[in-house]
Amino acid sequence: MTYCVGVLVDKGLVMLSDSRTNAGVDNIATYRKMTVWERPGDRVFCLLSAGNLAIAQAVVNLIEEWNGPDNRGDGGLFGVTSMFRAARLVGSAIRDVYEADGKALERHDQEFNASFLLGGQVAGGRTRLFQIYAEGNFIQASEDTPFLQIGEHKYGKPILDRAVTSGMSLKDATKLALVSMDSTLRSNLSVGFPVDLLVYEDGARRTRLRRTLDEDDAYFSDIRDRWSLALRRAYAELPDPDWFDETLAVIHDISDGKP
Amino acid sequence: MTYCVGVLVDKGLVMLSDSRTNAGVDNIATYRKMTVWERPGDRVFCLLSAGNLAIAQAVVNLIEEWNGPDNRGDGGLFGVTSMFRAARLVGSAIRDVYEADGKALERHDQEFNASFLLGGQVAGGRTRLFQIYAEGNFIQASEDTPFLQIGEHKYGKPILDRAVTSGMSLKDATKLALVSMDSTLRSNLSVGFPVDLLVYEDGARRTRLRRTLDEDDAYFSDIRDRWSLALRRAYAELPDPDWFDETLAVIHDISDGKP
Repeated sequence: MTYCVGVLVDKGLVMLSDSRTNAGVDNIATYRKMTVWERPGDRVFCLLSAGNLAIAQAVVNLIEEWNGPDNRGDGGLFGVTSMFRAARLVGSAIRDVYEADGKALERHDQEFNASFLLGGQVAGGRTRLFQIYAEGNFIQASEDTPFLQIGEHKYGKPILDRAVTSGMSLKDATKLALVSMDSTLRSNLSVGFPVDLLVYEDGARRTRLRRTLDEDDAYFSDIRDRWSLALRRAYAELPDPDWFDETLAVIHDISDGKP
Repeated sequence: MTYCVGVLVDKGLVMLSDSRTNAGVDNIATYRKMTVWERPGDRVFCLLSAGNLAIAQAVVNLIEEWNGPDNRGDGGLFGVTSMFRAARLVGSAIRDVYEADGKALERHDQEFNASFLLGGQVAGGRTRLFQIYAEGNFIQASEDTPFLQIGEHKYGKPILDRAVTSGMSLKDATKLALVSMDSTLRSNLSVGFPVDLLVYEDGARRTRLRRTLDEDDAYFSDIRDRWSLALRRAYAELPDPDWFDETLAVIHDISDGKP
């Protein structure tokens, strides 16, 4: 599995992905899940992928081809006029790969399992974030739901549910994405280092920051230790239940031989 | 879905379950997932169930029947000589239900989906906690892995991974289980109130505490608010990354028309 998260705030976009790929627990490899296409000053796209690695790589390769001037003739992602069109193009690539490989996967009882996050901005439009399904259709992040996740999303969701708001700074959104990733890394073996981070500032139309964080990255290690400590302290500070020492007045559900 | 967690510490056992049952999102009902069988001074069993409600109820009904003196003749759970034998008995009940219903479920492409947590103590043995699978076999909690979860377990796992230890008090284990439940309740609609709690003190062979917590339970509400606040504060206190304001020296992965 994998874990990828995108956070869309008023100020821009944070994209974060792990790099663990596994087929069972005895066949683990490192593959980056983040691909960036950028024409500085004009457009930035960041694509994160989860699911079957062969499908994800085929989709990225196809988009790369389409981006070439000789292929579809429209310049691919460098020709689209909006993020909506960009998401549709990614959807088309997924459907193209399904046409090519879907039947064969079916024959081997393999699901056509892939999902993508696409974030970025095209000159003239807003910064947007989409989640694109294996079917090729998609949903977008909104002010009410400012983050999207793919892959092993459950471990890292509680903190995002509680803390992400559209009005937060890019720096805060970055910290939250890292904390969410940390929860996932700790609780699930199939999500692993290194972690790829991209920060995009609305309106810039060029990447603000891109960084790969290894297990021994000083900042991320520090965050992880502090977060653990803070959680343990937070729980230690919770008040005791006043009913804890009540004597049990009634014994319930004694089904001593009486069905 | 559902969420159930059992925490086994040196001092005893905490069992916690939600009560949401759903078939799709438009057919939601409240069913308790906790069943307790107890002969004070001799033995206590607490069974939590997740998965297909019909299977879970059939298993509980069958065990109830077996507990009757007239049925199997061995007294069922009131006749077993150890927790290991009790877990085997639950496994037998699951297999019996599979014999009765498995084929029919298969015909309708329904998985035989059920899992159980069984905790308790029988006179002469230790307090133990088991997770029993749909196949009827089981694993037990240990000092290294002092908690077991069934159902929607991922949201509530990070805090348990970080904080549960065998040496902690029953009160602390109760608080942790509640915090873990809170994370799940907040992030997943298919897990819902009321929540059933049982606390068992090692050696007592009678239930220490049993309580049903509704959404408006003063203590649980307080815990939930404090926990949210503590998480947000913990994240706000994280240091900023020193690399955040670095200028991006190199633009990576520009695939401007070059596949």
